Amino acid sequence: MNKNLVVAAMALAVAAGSLIATPAAAQFAKAEDAIDYRQSAFTVMANHMGRLSAMAKGEKPFDAASAKASAQLIQTMSKLPWEAFTPGSDGGFSNVKGDPWKNADDFKSLQDKLMAETAKLPDAVGSLDGLRKQLGATGSACKACHDKYRAQ
Amino acid sequence: MNKNLVVAAMALAVAAGSLIATPAAAQFAKAEDAIDYRQSAFTVMANHMGRLSAMAKGEKPFDAASAKASAQLIQTMSKLPWEAFTPGSDGGFSNVKGDPWKNADDFKSLQDKLMAETAKLPDAVGSLDGLRKQLGATGSACKACHDKYRAQ
Repeated sequence: MNKNLVVAAMALAVAAGSLIATPAAAQFAKAEDAIDYRQSAFTVMANHMGRLSAMAKGEKPFDAASAKASAQLIQTMSKLPWEAFTPGSDGGFSNVKGDPWKNADDFKSLQDKLMAETAKLPDAVGSLDGLRKQLGATGSACKACHDKYRAQ
Repeated sequence: MNKNLVVAAMALAVAAGSLIATPAAAQFAKAEDAIDYRQSAFTVMANHMGRLSAMAKGEKPFDAASAKASAQLIQTMSKLPWEAFTPGSDGGFSNVKGDPWKNADDFKSLQDKLMAETAKLPDAVGSLDGLRKQLGATGSACKACHDKYRAQ
């Protein structure tokens, strides 16, 4: 679409008080795109949580460099899903339960808790003891939200 | 499983010459996990390519900070999928065509080309002109591989 037309249409929409979509929601053309995006971020995050978990359990040898790479990726991915919980994106292949939209403050506090824990991961995984401790704290933050808002 | 048992089993496997799984392949318990992981990385990458594209086309206002965040994420994601092209992971919901495993050198050179282009994105998107140019180069690197190895 012509850029000037877009700007004019946006100005009209604002004037009419109808521009209710947030900039974040506007990143997803439809609900399925939002669901796919947030599930993709969770999939990558979970895979790397699994890699750290394998080291924590001794199923894989502890490798500080590999652990740090996974930790940094987990931190990065933990910031992504939230904007994709767009209103109405609880159908289709979504696993949402418990209506996070009606419990927005609680949902937000669980997101913040997760991101606070993942922010500590990259430094913590320099030793196997540090990895075990901070992986546990991060996993607990995952679970606290899953228990309330993830159906499976 | 008990750690000592795992170590003993691995030692036996090595002794028998049967430990053929690469460390990378071992990150995925089954082919579906590898497919899901790589598709997830591509999904996040494609979404942020779309955000940059919207700015490039003037569908969204140019925002240097937002563009840089997307560019950094694209660079990060572009490194992830390749280890997940594990042997035998071309069934199910995979979109693979053209047998990248039989054309490993070509596939690798296309991966390297993409990563070389995405590495230039974060600095390039400081201006709209820079964004347009480097987004084009990155998109071409995506397409070169899709044309040969992606079914849809």
